[in-house]
Amino acid sequence: MVCLGLREVVVCCILLCSFEISFGAKTRHFKWDVEYMFWSPDCKESMVMGINGQFPGPTIRAKAGDTISVQLTNKLHTEGVLGTPWADGTASISQCAINPGETFIYRFIVDKAGTYFYHGHFGMQRSAGLYGSLIVDVADGEKEPFHYDGEFDLLLSDWWHQSVHHQEVGLSSKPFRWIGEPQTVLINGRGQFNCSLAAHFSNGTANQCILRGNEQCAPQILHVLPNRVYRLRVASTTALASLNLAVGNHKMVVVEADGNYVQPFEVEDLDIYSGESYSVLLTTNQDPSKNYWISIGVRGRKPQTPQALTLVNYSPTSASKLPISPPPVTPTWNDYDHSKSFSNKIFALMGSPKPPRNHDRRIILLNTQNLIDGYTKWAINNISLHLPSTPYLGSIKYSLKSAFDNKRPPENFASNYDIMKPPTNPNSTTGNGVYMLRLNTTVDVILQNANALSANVSEIHPWHLHGHDFWVLGYGEGKFTKKDEKKLNLKNPPLRNTVVIFPFGWTALRFVTDNPGVWAFHCHIEPHLHMGMGVVFAEAVEHVNDIPNQALACGLTGKRLMGTKQN
Amino acid sequence: MVCLGLREVVVCCILLCSFEISFGAKTRHFKWDVEYMFWSPDCKESMVMGINGQFPGPTIRAKAGDTISVQLTNKLHTEGVLGTPWADGTASISQCAINPGETFIYRFIVDKAGTYFYHGHFGMQRSAGLYGSLIVDVADGEKEPFHYDGEFDLLLSDWWHQSVHHQEVGLSSKPFRWIGEPQTVLINGRGQFNCSLAAHFSNGTANQCILRGNEQCAPQILHVLPNRVYRLRVASTTALASLNLAVGNHKMVVVEADGNYVQPFEVEDLDIYSGESYSVLLTTNQDPSKNYWISIGVRGRKPQTPQALTLVNYSPTSASKLPISPPPVTPTWNDYDHSKSFSNKIFALMGSPKPPRNHDRRIILLNTQNLIDGYTKWAINNISLHLPSTPYLGSIKYSLKSAFDNKRPPENFASNYDIMKPPTNPNSTTGNGVYMLRLNTTVDVILQNANALSANVSEIHPWHLHGHDFWVLGYGEGKFTKKDEKKLNLKNPPLRNTVVIFPFGWTALRFVTDNPGVWAFHCHIEPHLHMGMGVVFAEAVEHVNDIPNQALACGLTGKRLMGTKQN
Repeated sequence: MVCLGLREVVVCCILLCSFEISFGAKTRHFKWDVEYMFWSPDCKESMVMGINGQFPGPTIRAKAGDTISVQLTNKLHTEGVLGTPWADGTASISQCAINPGETFIYRFIVDKAGTYFYHGHFGMQRSAGLYGSLIVDVADGEKEPFHYDGEFDLLLSDWWHQSVHHQEVGLSSKPFRWIGEPQTVLINGRGQFNCSLAAHFSNGTANQCILRGNEQCAPQILHVLPNRVYRLRVASTTALASLNLAVGNHKMVVVEADGNYVQPFEVEDLDIYSGESYSVLLTTNQDPSKNYWISIGVRGRKPQTPQALTLVNYSPTSASKLPISPPPVTPTWNDYDHSKSFSNKIFALMGSPKPPRNHDRRIILLNTQNLIDGYTKWAINNISLHLPSTPYLGSIKYSLKSAFDNKRPPENFASNYDIMKPPTNPNSTTGNGVYMLRLNTTVDVILQNANALSANVSEIHPWHLHGHDFWVLGYGEGKFTKKDEKKLNLKNPPLRNTVVIFPFGWTALRFVTDNPGVWAFHCHIEPHLHMGMGVVFAEAVEHVNDIPNQALACGLTGKRLMGTKQN
Repeated sequence: MVCLGLREVVVCCILLCSFEISFGAKTRHFKWDVEYMFWSPDCKESMVMGINGQFPGPTIRAKAGDTISVQLTNKLHTEGVLGTPWADGTASISQCAINPGETFIYRFIVDKAGTYFYHGHFGMQRSAGLYGSLIVDVADGEKEPFHYDGEFDLLLSDWWHQSVHHQEVGLSSKPFRWIGEPQTVLINGRGQFNCSLAAHFSNGTANQCILRGNEQCAPQILHVLPNRVYRLRVASTTALASLNLAVGNHKMVVVEADGNYVQPFEVEDLDIYSGESYSVLLTTNQDPSKNYWISIGVRGRKPQTPQALTLVNYSPTSASKLPISPPPVTPTWNDYDHSKSFSNKIFALMGSPKPPRNHDRRIILLNTQNLIDGYTKWAINNISLHLPSTPYLGSIKYSLKSAFDNKRPPENFASNYDIMKPPTNPNSTTGNGVYMLRLNTTVDVILQNANALSANVSEIHPWHLHGHDFWVLGYGEGKFTKKDEKKLNLKNPPLRNTVVIFPFGWTALRFVTDNPGVWAFHCHIEPHLHMGMGVVFAEAVEHVNDIPNQALACGLTGKRLMGTKQN
């Protein structure tokens, strides 16, 4: 569905089984129809996947401890949609698709305050616009560890004029056809194609900009009062783009990352990768007779997409008054030092859970670009993930061994592999084997980046884990070695659910297997996942019980369920 | 799937249960992967739904009595495909969708020689190119009632440059957005956009024509020997267009319609509506030093689509020699007298099964264009068909009454309805009630055309019945009345599975309910069906047994199957 990728929510579903709902918590009901509709996210008409006629989908707002109940009806004519709440609904991992015309009710508890979002996880439905915000406030009687007077949600995404179907077929074609850079970056589903809102500062031949009105592409302006503190909840559901956000004349203080409080730190601009969310505090301490640009630029890939812009409008200044200064220029796309410096400033807030001192198991995952029968793919330890048609959760629970590769995927790569060069043998294989994890094990994962197929190319990949937060123990250059172990941060590593690997570098993370289920761990760049960039962790599945039948009603688990009940 | 709409095949599935396979008959195995791919059907690149990398799909060739086994894998990323062999696979009628990644094996006996085709029946997958030919030869030792020296298949379709998804969303939008006329008519999946092959006879600014080579859009030329008789097997899987086929300087003799032999008759040109198939005999009795155009034009709608063209090439004349005469001009689009004259020439071959003398039940179906909440729809007796998510076959068999409207749809319309004028009250309702038919009843259906929403507009609709051939008892003008009954042809009416209603006219047909199942009866124009133009006949479902579980594994029948088997 829609709830796939619901981050923390995953955990909450499990909590639902074992804990009582706390006093004062509510069940919040939503009824959603998902369908394609004509829409002009960037002033140019396209088709988007909407929910209840809205794009992006409605914001879910709840308090920690609440139960969310979403009754989702797939009104698409031929496409299934995939959802999560049973486990977390990655296609082929935890649940069967919701077929056209069918309805599925997702119930889950949101146990932790923070900034989240939901999105479809079936095919490339995220690129098609199936996403929305999920904001969880602290429970009654609890407090955030910082103060603010008001807040704004900024859900960021990227947008192509070519249909998702077209993009998808290109990725699966031989020769490979790359979808190219997005035409537009959207803020809350709104952007302007070929019109930097600041057209008069640029010298391109931009379209006329639409700053106001009911147009679907007019920006949502942030109306503020002077001398207040605002919380900007920034989340990125981009299919491809890594982004950087800056506010003209203002600094920001980062206080939350992926639903976890962090040690507050001040920045001029904020890096945000696909799958991540942040809260930053913005103090409106500038000249109130002026307005200020918010500017969002593309990082990590040579940008061919104009900056997305909107305005911070100080009351009582008119919102139609354009800023005097040009929009802040976000850092150069390949200024990786800037990015690393930002990532390395993120520490857990004091009092946050600390990681175990030692790991029980270490899995090293080499990220490579490969060829399989002439098709361009991404592979992890030389296996490109091709999901099976029977969701793992059921096939593992019921030992349906023909449902996926029984051979365990490798836990490391050849020690002589040169990560600084294109692969000597670019050929790889597809597979869908599973890393089996025992309960209450401390697992370290080392994500190892490498050179892609072309020389001197190594891309950024934001890796996202379902079912868990993990501690980010550190980042490094080149190949991870024994001496890097000593540099790992075990003191105050931040908890995240998404973490980036930088070009030619490594990232180390740790988690404890305390959440039985089957969890995808994958690059959150949608075309990369589509091309095989992911692995699957099966965690103590013997402890998963009461899987709803509807989540099993496909593939081999469907056959098994129906095995004996025929007339 | 793919086998939806497999006409006679429907019947064959039933035969499979009750008869032994005759001696000498074979099982023919096919293994098909369905996926989207880039293709240039009319020299302009688009996406098509291909089977095993081919467009159109592979031709199935078999002998009467053979068993066809198609193992179909859905390689589409998010779309289900729908298939028939259990019953005949209309989405929501007889079977659940085949989800992405899943495989389904269709087995059916082809019991009757003739010219057929297969196509997808889920959403608008037919418009997307999911179709191919199905040719059944007479069984060993049997003979066709006519002679021929060679044969050619001509599978006709129409093609749009806008994606099917875009078309579909337009049809479901408020205000309604019509998909418009097709850009190109294709012969065996090949056509040329904006190039009548005869560009030098026209005065438009046509593209250069591609007559030869490996291009996907180069026409398949019919290479013939002089003084021979060729059987042209012509079938139309158009989404919209009614067509007319003519061969320069040659007459044709019609010998087969929808897999049934007809009394041979000579024509200058052949009308063919979506869903129909014909065999015509062409005698190559013209000057063999010349080549001749085959020309296919649009009927019934003001054509904005150029004629499709290919060549009859007489050996040993070079295929590159263009005909001296311009391509035959097919009749004017609105020359309905021509069309009626053609339809009225079709009679069953002597010795064909005759209809019972009397009917037991008569169902009159008024065809109207309507508005529902501002959406443009088609309705039958004021109900626009909206298929339920649980296929009828299972929900009726197992009395799952909440699966569809239990109120029986009306068998007639108000006697004072003026079919010559737009509806006084254009509002209508959606529904999915069922006409329940008892076993061995003779049912007459009167299809009654009417004025659409705009004054002086009444469209052609080719109605197609699944699960049955029916006798076409006659056509008439205006409203069907008692005195029209006497004019019905009970002597030698042709058996068909598709029949047209002409503007402002009626068509009478008869069938005997000897085939238990649930059968869609609908306008074969894909956007019209999408807009609700169909009804459902449930025929003696209590006699249907052994429905495969996989055909029931969705919606309420899926829940029922799984009801008791949970851990």
